[in-house]
Amino acid sequence: MKNQKLLDKALGCLPSLYETKVDAVRTVELEKNGEKTEIKETENYTEQSLKKHSKICLDFGNHQVGYLTLKLGYKGSHPDAPVWMRIHFAENPRELFEDAESYQGWICSSWIEEERIHVDVIPSEVKLPRRYAFRYVVIEILDISSKFDLVIEKAECTAVSCVRDEELLDFQAQSPYLKRLDQVACRTLHNCMQTVFEDGPKRDRRLWMGDLRIQALTNYQTYKKSSLVKACLYLFAALPMEDGKVGACLFLEPEPEVDDTQMFDYSLFFINTLWDYFRETGDRTTLEELWPTVLKQIEIAKKSLDGEMLVKDSDILGWCFVDWNLNLNKQASAQGILLYALSAAVKMAQTIGDILVEEELAELYCACRNAANERLWDSKQGCYISGKDRQISIASQVWMVLGEAVTGEDARKLLMEIEQREDVEKMVTPYMYHNYIDALLHTGEKNRALRKLETYWGGMLEQGADTFWELYNPENVNESPYGGTIVNSYCHAWSCGPAYFLRKFFKAEEE
Amino acid sequence: MKNQKLLDKALGCLPSLYETKVDAVRTVELEKNGEKTEIKETENYTEQSLKKHSKICLDFGNHQVGYLTLKLGYKGSHPDAPVWMRIHFAENPRELFEDAESYQGWICSSWIEEERIHVDVIPSEVKLPRRYAFRYVVIEILDISSKFDLVIEKAECTAVSCVRDEELLDFQAQSPYLKRLDQVACRTLHNCMQTVFEDGPKRDRRLWMGDLRIQALTNYQTYKKSSLVKACLYLFAALPMEDGKVGACLFLEPEPEVDDTQMFDYSLFFINTLWDYFRETGDRTTLEELWPTVLKQIEIAKKSLDGEMLVKDSDILGWCFVDWNLNLNKQASAQGILLYALSAAVKMAQTIGDILVEEELAELYCACRNAANERLWDSKQGCYISGKDRQISIASQVWMVLGEAVTGEDARKLLMEIEQREDVEKMVTPYMYHNYIDALLHTGEKNRALRKLETYWGGMLEQGADTFWELYNPENVNESPYGGTIVNSYCHAWSCGPAYFLRKFFKAEEE
Repeated sequence: MKNQKLLDKALGCLPSLYETKVDAVRTVELEKNGEKTEIKETENYTEQSLKKHSKICLDFGNHQVGYLTLKLGYKGSHPDAPVWMRIHFAENPRELFEDAESYQGWICSSWIEEERIHVDVIPSEVKLPRRYAFRYVVIEILDISSKFDLVIEKAECTAVSCVRDEELLDFQAQSPYLKRLDQVACRTLHNCMQTVFEDGPKRDRRLWMGDLRIQALTNYQTYKKSSLVKACLYLFAALPMEDGKVGACLFLEPEPEVDDTQMFDYSLFFINTLWDYFRETGDRTTLEELWPTVLKQIEIAKKSLDGEMLVKDSDILGWCFVDWNLNLNKQASAQGILLYALSAAVKMAQTIGDILVEEELAELYCACRNAANERLWDSKQGCYISGKDRQISIASQVWMVLGEAVTGEDARKLLMEIEQREDVEKMVTPYMYHNYIDALLHTGEKNRALRKLETYWGGMLEQGADTFWELYNPENVNESPYGGTIVNSYCHAWSCGPAYFLRKFFKAEEE
Repeated sequence: MKNQKLLDKALGCLPSLYETKVDAVRTVELEKNGEKTEIKETENYTEQSLKKHSKICLDFGNHQVGYLTLKLGYKGSHPDAPVWMRIHFAENPRELFEDAESYQGWICSSWIEEERIHVDVIPSEVKLPRRYAFRYVVIEILDISSKFDLVIEKAECTAVSCVRDEELLDFQAQSPYLKRLDQVACRTLHNCMQTVFEDGPKRDRRLWMGDLRIQALTNYQTYKKSSLVKACLYLFAALPMEDGKVGACLFLEPEPEVDDTQMFDYSLFFINTLWDYFRETGDRTTLEELWPTVLKQIEIAKKSLDGEMLVKDSDILGWCFVDWNLNLNKQASAQGILLYALSAAVKMAQTIGDILVEEELAELYCACRNAANERLWDSKQGCYISGKDRQISIASQVWMVLGEAVTGEDARKLLMEIEQREDVEKMVTPYMYHNYIDALLHTGEKNRALRKLETYWGGMLEQGADTFWELYNPENVNESPYGGTIVNSYCHAWSCGPAYFLRKFFKAEEE
């Protein structure tokens, strides 16, 4: 199903990477104190003579994505045997206290950034061939000849990204706290901006459609590298699944290829991401070239509707991601997301000037909206329900608001009231929180949106985040949907939204 | 103390390496049955789908020194996570049953040829950057995503050596058994012949003087690469220790440099090795250029003599290797080795035409021989004793014979009788066995020498050796001077002598 013409166009837009040399800024000792990790500066690594079982922890000052180079020297006799080392990279100091051996979760433990290497020649410069995402690096000498001590004369990271710090647009925040939130969000995006918009540079470095939407929006407010968004959109259009559906994610290596993961919502987000891109750039050629892919997504999504224009229940629909809450029934969210996509598609048809299609899409939108309001609205409960068990969740309301099944004061009240309720399915990922903030802003609730943003993303800041995380539950920092936090990613695309929100809606007033 | 002129000459003679591609010839399963390892052929690795915890063992058909390349493919969904593998190389199948974690010996465990690697991209070709010495390779999947299985489509070794099989001189052995002994000895030498004559390609890949002597002699009968001997002699002469002594061993990487290990015997063997080289090649320039190094070794060795021209006892002498038998008193062996070196030096002086030096050396030789026979010969015991405790060992007799302190029928009887005695210090390494065989031949005991050679090296053959080992004690196969057999080397230079002996002394009679 590969479209070579679109693929060539995509590959032609892929950026090259900038390299930045970053030195380890200090040597630290980490101690676990209950849930907190205490970090103390210690004797500089270059001064330490490392013997068997010696262990040092390097701090690179901020979250880095890149390659580690160690310049190795020695004290004592000429090295007469290889040095055997364990090198453990950590985005978050907590990873250094987790035991890789005992991890038994369902995500592959091969993502744990830990190597055991032998260095045959010393003195030498060792550049590890793999890319890592980290701030901290622990180096432990597993074995070394007793005839000499190892000295690490220099530890350097060659950090990579397709954007440079200097390209970041200026932003006057309303407070130092918001400024810091923005900085961390920008760093998150920066470190996910590689050859494509990656999901997370530690784990699952693929290009995911759902994450791309948020990254693209944030990118327009920050690094403004719209060519990267264009490349990613062309990639998705060039490499659909067998039935023409936009895949949930793509691999770049060894050859660009679509994954076999299908997600109802992620395929539809192609439409909104293309529309956002057009609004940002006015690039009509791209809009027109990718327009058939848009129509194909709608045609495929229609097959998930029942006779009365309602998305089928979760168990028949197939995977619709929405959030990592495994109890969540996705029917209502899916209906809202379909509306959200259709609404963009109508505007695209209008822009393109295809009046017949515009009318068809508008009719479809209305029919789906009516179905939502007739069959999923529970007037007694005063909110949307989802699935045969009539589940109530925040996600369902958020997507009905963003899909404009409900608007104006009704929408504002709906979000206000759902937040008060304890008996509803909550949100668990920054991704869902992002959409929630978006919905609050959509209903004009700027203050509440800002407070939520400050509380939720600020919670990560208080835990020492240099970049925003894949997962954060203020009530349980040990939460992981994967069966162990050691594989959690602490620099994750879908968490970069604060820079988008703050820069678009919360600029400091000009004096 | 570096002599740049000699060093440049050495570096100019260093060979480049030939590469030979070797495929894994079969896939096997190993089972330990008491002391024996049973090897069964199993389903070819290319047909196996590898999941988490899968383990395969590849057999490369013979001992190899080189680099491993794996061509990796998959079955199932597109790989969505790195593959984490353990790769364990073994020269001897017994290594695969040894537990690296529990090894606590004094030789660094970093020599154990085991890697844990992450492969990020599949399909791909992975070439491990380090060189290994092995016949067997066990690959174990430590973790892999459940979305796909790994398939090893091709496993290839790029074997390296500075000589090619085709260069090996023809040899008509007296029997198929002796032919096999010769083959294994030649393979041992071949795989130690790299940029220099290495000690053992698995562990301690340095150039050692004591091993060089044996390798050079065997080389003249086999691959006839005398330029490599020349390069090694120039290296030792170019890089002496501070006092001008030839070091026991040299490093090649990152720069040629002498180790700080001193051995009385190894320094002196420079003399014999140069003399053997001259006799082989007639290369007078080398003889003359390295002659000052010869004289320096004798000058330094003289400092170890007491007033009566006897090498001081072991505790004052410093390290004189002789054998890995830690109970061995080295005084008598050292005296014998000094005679052995002086005897060669006298002939060299004669060749060079330096009559004064020749006379001086001859006088020194006689004085030392007299000292040996007056002070170390125990006429009641009928053999040479060593040290203040008057220790009797095979080594002492061997070196007195090779140094010609005793000659003719007396020498023959001495070796015959010492072998009958149970109350003497025995030999433990192939290195010392080599010198023993040499001494037997020196006394004309060809049959006994051959029987010994067949029994001792043949014992390794019966244990399945593809190359001869660093250590072999017929009475205890679990012996290691290092505190664990897992670091033992099973292709070791000093074991290659059978090819020298068989080809020089035991050619089949021509029909």
